[in-house]
Amino acid sequence: MPKNQQVLLDNRPEGEATTGNFKLVDAETPALADGQVLVRHHYMSLDPYMRGRMNESKSYAQPQPLGQVMQGGTVGEIVESRHPRYAVGDKVVGFGGWQNYSVVDANVPGSLRKVDTTHVPLSHYLGAVGMPGVTAWYGLVKIIAPKAGDTLVVSAASGAVGSAFGALAKARGCRVVGIAGGPDKCAYVQDELGFDECIDYKVHGDVKSLSAALKAACPDGIDGYFENVGGMVLDAVLLRTNAFARIALCGMIAGYDGAPLPLTNPSVLLINRIKLEGFIVSEHMEVWPEALAELGGLVASGKLRPRESVAEGLAAAPQAFLGLLKGKNFGKQLVKLI
Amino acid sequence: MPKNQQVLLDNRPEGEATTGNFKLVDAETPALADGQVLVRHHYMSLDPYMRGRMNESKSYAQPQPLGQVMQGGTVGEIVESRHPRYAVGDKVVGFGGWQNYSVVDANVPGSLRKVDTTHVPLSHYLGAVGMPGVTAWYGLVKIIAPKAGDTLVVSAASGAVGSAFGALAKARGCRVVGIAGGPDKCAYVQDELGFDECIDYKVHGDVKSLSAALKAACPDGIDGYFENVGGMVLDAVLLRTNAFARIALCGMIAGYDGAPLPLTNPSVLLINRIKLEGFIVSEHMEVWPEALAELGGLVASGKLRPRESVAEGLAAAPQAFLGLLKGKNFGKQLVKLI
Repeated sequence: MPKNQQVLLDNRPEGEATTGNFKLVDAETPALADGQVLVRHHYMSLDPYMRGRMNESKSYAQPQPLGQVMQGGTVGEIVESRHPRYAVGDKVVGFGGWQNYSVVDANVPGSLRKVDTTHVPLSHYLGAVGMPGVTAWYGLVKIIAPKAGDTLVVSAASGAVGSAFGALAKARGCRVVGIAGGPDKCAYVQDELGFDECIDYKVHGDVKSLSAALKAACPDGIDGYFENVGGMVLDAVLLRTNAFARIALCGMIAGYDGAPLPLTNPSVLLINRIKLEGFIVSEHMEVWPEALAELGGLVASGKLRPRESVAEGLAAAPQAFLGLLKGKNFGKQLVKLI
Repeated sequence: MPKNQQVLLDNRPEGEATTGNFKLVDAETPALADGQVLVRHHYMSLDPYMRGRMNESKSYAQPQPLGQVMQGGTVGEIVESRHPRYAVGDKVVGFGGWQNYSVVDANVPGSLRKVDTTHVPLSHYLGAVGMPGVTAWYGLVKIIAPKAGDTLVVSAASGAVGSAFGALAKARGCRVVGIAGGPDKCAYVQDELGFDECIDYKVHGDVKSLSAALKAACPDGIDGYFENVGGMVLDAVLLRTNAFARIALCGMIAGYDGAPLPLTNPSVLLINRIKLEGFIVSEHMEVWPEALAELGGLVASGKLRPRESVAEGLAAAPQAFLGLLKGKNFGKQLVKLI
C-alpha cells in the first residue's frame, strides 16, 4: 500500500488560529475491504467553514475531532477498487480530508461522485462546479430570488463563491457589484468575471466611507446581498438596502477568530423589511444536481472563469488555510498533492 | 358643526420624545362634501410605530408631517353622513388621527370599515381585532409558520400584539413563553392570557442572566421568536434558538429613542441557519380578512381577553404615548374621547 501523510487537528485555537494547531504525520493506508476504494487525492479544498469547526463551541457542524485528520473536500483518482461501480482511473469528488490518500466506503450515499473532466478541469469540482458554486447558487436562487434588473452585491467577490455568484447573477440579468480586497482582485472581478463594478474595501476605513462607495456603485439601492464576511461590510451594505431586500447569510469570516462582531444597526432590518436567512449548502442536497448542471455549463462555455490559488504539497496546507482566513488567497484556495 | 380639538406634531424629537413635541389646538370641522362622513371618535390608538414616524429620517413609513394632526387609528361613530353606505350611528374603524372628530372621504378604499359590536367591544377593533392583532397573526402564520409542539417566544407579551400572539400560538398547539416587564404583567400573561410561562426581563440585568431564564423556560430551545423590543432581549433569545428558527421582526422599541442598539452576535444567525424577516402589517392587507376573522372568534369565545390601558381625553394623549414607549401601559394603550 502507498505511504500516506495526513494533517491532524492537534489542538484548538485560542483566538486566532495558528500553524501550531495542526500536526503533519505519516500514516499507513489500510487494506481495502469489499465495497471500498482507494483514492489518490490530486487536490484538496481549503474553505472558510473549516475555521468554525476547529472550535469546540456549538457551530453549525460537529466540531472537527481533535487528533483526527482535518476534514475537507478532495478530488482525485481511483487507484484501487473493490467496488463494481468504480474502476482504477476514474476521477472522483469526495470528502477525503487533508491527506494524500483516502479509503472510501463507496456504498455510503454521497461519499463519492464520478466526474467528467472533458470540459471542466478536475480542480474546478472543488470550486465553481462544487460546494462553493452550489453555495452561490442556493443563496442567489433560493434566498435572494432576484428578478432581472435587481442590483445585487456580494462580498469576497473574487473568491470561489463570489465569482460563481457573479456569473449566475449576470445570467439572470442583474446588476452585480462585488466587494473585494485590493486593486488586483477588484480588476479581476470587473474585467474577467464580468461584474458591473467592484469596490475595494481596503481603501475604506469606516462604514460611512464604504457605504458612500456602495451608494455610488448602486445608484438604485441594493435588492440582494450575499454575505461572506460580516463586520463592517455588512453594516455598510445594510445602509444601502432597498425595501424588501434579501440577504443570504453564508459566512462571517471577519468574526471567525476572536470576539463576535456586532451588527451596528439591526433596526435597518425592520425599517427596510429585510428578509435574512443563514444557510449551509450541505443541508440542501436536493438543489445540487440543478445547480451543478448550470455551473458546469457556465464554466464549459467560458462565462465563468474561476481563478485558483494553489499551494503545493500537503505540508503547505496549514499556512495556506491561515492565509485564506486573512484573504491572502486569490480565487479558490486549493492544495495540489500530485 | 361640532368643535374639534387636535394634537399636532409641533417639532421633531432630539433623542427622547417629550410632551413638548406635541401641541393641542382647537379646530373647526369643515362642512361635508358629497361622499364624506363625519366620525366622532370614541377611542384612539397609541402605537409604538408612531415614534419612528416622528423622526425625519428614513423609516418604513413617510414621516409624520410637522404641524399636522398626529396620524393614528381610531374607532367611532358616524354622526353625519353624505355617503349612501354609512348611516348616522354606524360604528366604524378608521385612521382619524389624534382628534375628536374626523371628516372622511368614504369612497377611498380602506378609509373606513363598519364593525359589529355585538360580541366584540368597539375598542378591541384597535387592538386584538385590529392592526395589532393582525400584526401578531402575520408574524406567527406567515413568518414563523409554526407546527404543533414548537416553542415560541414573544417580547412585550402583555401588550396588544403579544397577547394576541399568545392566543393564536396556543390555538396552534405551541408552547408559548412571554417576556414582559414586572410581576403584574407576567402574572397576567400566564394566568389570564394562558401563556405557558412568562419571564420578567426587569429582574435580569444582562444577556447572560436573561438567556439562562430563557433556557429554563424553553428546555427544548426556541423555534420561533416574535420581536417587539430589540436590544438585550433579542441578544438573549438568539443564544437559545434552535437550528432553523424563524424570527418575525416587528418592532425594536428599545432603540426608538437615541442611538441604535447593536446586535451583539449576528453570527448566531448563520450558525443556527435562522430566517429573520422584518415586516409591516399594513403592507399585507390581503391577510386582514382571514386574520380578523380568527381574532374576532378568539375574543368572542373568551380565549383572548385583551387588557387595555385607557387614558382619558385628547389632552392626555402625549403623556400616555410617552408612557407606552417606556412600557408603562398594561395592555393595549388607548385614549378615550367620549
